[in-house]
Amino acid sequence: MTSIVRNQWYVAAYGSEVGRELFARTICGEPILFWRTESGEVTAMSDRCVHRRFPLSQAPSRLEGDTVVCGYHGFTYGADGGCVAVPGQSRIPRTARLQSYTVVEQDSFVWIWISDPSNPVEPDATRIPRAPWLDSPDYTVVRGMEPLQARYSLLVDNLMDLSHETYLHGGYIGTPEVAATPITTEVDEDAGVIYMTRHMDDAECPPFYSESTGIEGRITRWQDVEYTPPCLYLLHSRIAPVGVLPPETGPDSDAFHVEVVYAITPETEHSTHDFWSVARDFALEDEGVTDFLRENNRTVVLQDVVALDLLETVIAGEPEGYQELSINIDAGALAARRLLAQMVKRSTSSTAPIG
Amino acid sequence: MTSIVRNQWYVAAYGSEVGRELFARTICGEPILFWRTESGEVTAMSDRCVHRRFPLSQAPSRLEGDTVVCGYHGFTYGADGGCVAVPGQSRIPRTARLQSYTVVEQDSFVWIWISDPSNPVEPDATRIPRAPWLDSPDYTVVRGMEPLQARYSLLVDNLMDLSHETYLHGGYIGTPEVAATPITTEVDEDAGVIYMTRHMDDAECPPFYSESTGIEGRITRWQDVEYTPPCLYLLHSRIAPVGVLPPETGPDSDAFHVEVVYAITPETEHSTHDFWSVARDFALEDEGVTDFLRENNRTVVLQDVVALDLLETVIAGEPEGYQELSINIDAGALAARRLLAQMVKRSTSSTAPIG
Amino acid sequence: MTSIVRNQWYVAAYGSEVGRELFARTICGEPILFWRTESGEVTAMSDRCVHRRFPLSQAPSRLEGDTVVCGYHGFTYGADGGCVAVPGQSRIPRTARLQSYTVVEQDSFVWIWISDPSNPVEPDATRIPRAPWLDSPDYTVVRGMEPLQARYSLLVDNLMDLSHETYLHGGYIGTPEVAATPITTEVDEDAGVIYMTRHMDDAECPPFYSESTGIEGRITRWQDVEYTPPCLYLLHSRIAPVGVLPPETGPDSDAFHVEVVYAITPETEHSTHDFWSVARDFALEDEGVTDFLRENNRTVVLQDVVALDLLETVIAGEPEGYQELSINIDAGALAARRLLAQMVKRSTSSTAPIG
Repeated sequence: MTSIVRNQWYVAAYGSEVGRELFARTICGEPILFWRTESGEVTAMSDRCVHRRFPLSQAPSRLEGDTVVCGYHGFTYGADGGCVAVPGQSRIPRTARLQSYTVVEQDSFVWIWISDPSNPVEPDATRIPRAPWLDSPDYTVVRGMEPLQARYSLLVDNLMDLSHETYLHGGYIGTPEVAATPITTEVDEDAGVIYMTRHMDDAECPPFYSESTGIEGRITRWQDVEYTPPCLYLLHSRIAPVGVLPPETGPDSDAFHVEVVYAITPETEHSTHDFWSVARDFALEDEGVTDFLRENNRTVVLQDVVALDLLETVIAGEPEGYQELSINIDAGALAARRLLAQMVKRSTSSTAPIG
Repeated sequence: MTSIVRNQWYVAAYGSEVGRELFARTICGEPILFWRTESGEVTAMSDRCVHRRFPLSQAPSRLEGDTVVCGYHGFTYGADGGCVAVPGQSRIPRTARLQSYTVVEQDSFVWIWISDPSNPVEPDATRIPRAPWLDSPDYTVVRGMEPLQARYSLLVDNLMDLSHETYLHGGYIGTPEVAATPITTEVDEDAGVIYMTRHMDDAECPPFYSESTGIEGRITRWQDVEYTPPCLYLLHSRIAPVGVLPPETGPDSDAFHVEVVYAITPETEHSTHDFWSVARDFALEDEGVTDFLRENNRTVVLQDVVALDLLETVIAGEPEGYQELSINIDAGALAARRLLAQMVKRSTSSTAPIG
Repeated sequence: MTSIVRNQWYVAAYGSEVGRELFARTICGEPILFWRTESGEVTAMSDRCVHRRFPLSQAPSRLEGDTVVCGYHGFTYGADGGCVAVPGQSRIPRTARLQSYTVVEQDSFVWIWISDPSNPVEPDATRIPRAPWLDSPDYTVVRGMEPLQARYSLLVDNLMDLSHETYLHGGYIGTPEVAATPITTEVDEDAGVIYMTRHMDDAECPPFYSESTGIEGRITRWQDVEYTPPCLYLLHSRIAPVGVLPPETGPDSDAFHVEVVYAITPETEHSTHDFWSVARDFALEDEGVTDFLRENNRTVVLQDVVALDLLETVIAGEPEGYQELSINIDAGALAARRLLAQMVKRSTSSTAPIG
């Protein structure tokens, strides 16, 4: 039984990863080839020649103008995936066509529509969730992508329960208050969004923020999570000296804002692309702060990678029907599991569009 | 179909392996965490947090006094496996408890009771087989543990047919007489013990014994095996100059005695912990002899490891229903297989205690 | 469902690989031990002791005169696979006998008959296909064997569609004309041989041939393929300056002839022994040409190895029922698939001998 939701938009890559070199990535179990046309548009098509299944991303396959030439027998494809040349004959078989994918570049990402072949739904680009900070002059961004040898639901669990910051990321981003402070959780069933809030009024300032903001002493620290399953996770983080609250009107300029964005894209049933970006609205030009945040955020992500890869091997070795125990802090993660299970069910059983 | 016998005592570790650091070992497919309390007692509990299955043996999990703190979300457990703290709430769920295991320290080993969940039997520590030489001032001991990538029955086969010493360990512990001398085999069905005897009256002295005892010339060499399935294998080895027999009464002080002890503990269906110890009643303080025996015995054990790991891969690749051919020297190994098969059957089908 | 054809002759080794050292190779899933008797004959028997399945090719197993002694317990076998000694007793069990294999040395190869145990057919050495150039004073030969982590049918596909030379081996053996020139294909159903012909009247001379023959300028290049499934593939290659055709009578001495021979032997369902030999009738004593052809042919074979190993992983990850698309150049490969499928079917369902 698959746990991957289809008829959905997923982040396939950062726009900057795709250029005039053949680029391959497996998304939801499908090997996909990406390249930019000479006019700069991203194209996506199956990374498997229709003839003898050679991966078109592999040398000596090559890009020639706006066509891709297979490195095995020379089958040649255009930007729409249609075959334009085959060896030894001039007639091109009518069915010689690579599956092509709908892609949209937005907010620094290449989004791709992964459909369910047994129940195809037309992609609707207006439903792609937004992360405008990643592509805005008002923010400075550090980012990366770490491959996880773990199912995507383990990353969802991880991000939906930030109490782990206190333990797994102690000394970086966690302090005792994160685990100690209860959360509130809300689910917008119609929009398919989960909201989680943890407001710490008087908390220790972790090195991650003291170093980057320059705040000395204790802080007011807000974590507002907004998860649009399956792919886009936003953590709106507000840091200010204790007692400094947003003004009734006007900009919240006495606080520091960090927009943490994760895109969670299944590579296969048991591996995941973990795209992470951190946008800040302060010290925009300060290279030292940029380097510090890039380095430290990557360290924190890699702590998660180690833990989640380990959990995947634990699951692989455990008896069937093993039961976890959940507590109050798991409300958000459990809501996410419920929505995802509904989406898997819907994507494989009806023709209704899925939010 | 499992080949692992449950409702049994197994050696989990040497006592010296378990201290104030978290220590993990998988026994019979179960990942188990070991540590000593501040008062020095060994505890054993499931190595998997009840919350999100994080291994408690993995950093940043840590021992704090007589509790273990999970490195993922901070679930905290006492020495009995009961949960004493969880993040974000003061109420501890009633079912938040790790499976705990009965352990007994004896004869230098940590013994653990591995029960059959479908047919649990109360552990009876008086039934743990003994190896008193390993913890006696009258003996000097060398020992080790080698991980086998092979099912435990291959190690049982190996130890129950010492004719392999002549071939696999030629130049170390084997001489032509070992393979050439027939054995006698006896099975005590009630006690569940197999006895095998090979008395060589006039045999070449292998380097293993000539170097350690100083005997020059040929020897009388007795091998008396006592195997208590599934875990404990004893080889009582007596070496003396040719013709020197034990006196009618009094100590056998003109002979050299070596007590070879193996504990055979399944890690999984296809891997095994091979604990080996060699106790001698001579040259007790001689470091040179100690070093020689440690080095040479380890070499011999590693020769077995290479052979058994290879046999496991041979089995993995062979057609179903492949038949071996057995001869007289296999009497002990076949008796062991028969007892083990009975024990597997009993441990999964009745409530009778198993010897 | 197996794709391996049984009741067939396969190349197991080059004769030069088998001597007075124990030599093991897995053929069609069967681990086989090869050695030469003191009188020089190649013997082949199961590489698995009848007693406890120890591989007889593994140290400390050893050859002793015309017997093999198992390195585990000393079971000893003669050249016919019969057991001649066991430990601890003088009586040899009647059934103590290794499976032995019929082998024939011919054309530099050791051919072995792999029978179907459920439908055994007597081997007929007159049906072994010939490659006399490999053992002839009129030719100089370079050769090798590369292990493929890919099913043998991928190598058959590869060799039966030489249009891939243009793309995968461009700059070595391929030129645009190979892919552009249509082929003719003929199948001799009775003899079980597929013939393919590609005659290029006016073609670029690839470095492979310009360097070795010294021809400057364009060439007449003929490729005549003769495949006798499952194992022997011959490519008769004729290179001459443009317009130079064979004389009506007498030897074709104004052309250069290269006999390329592949023996395609399944190791397992998913791996293959790729034996390649290149025999030429020119520059027989020229070491420079020999070195050039050895080096360059091996490079070309390794380009195939990389591609075919990759295709095996692509197949492993692809949905069931995936369909390829075939075109005119695939006529030979499709004919080979059809013959092989018939042979698999016949070898597992009737008692008729198979060509």
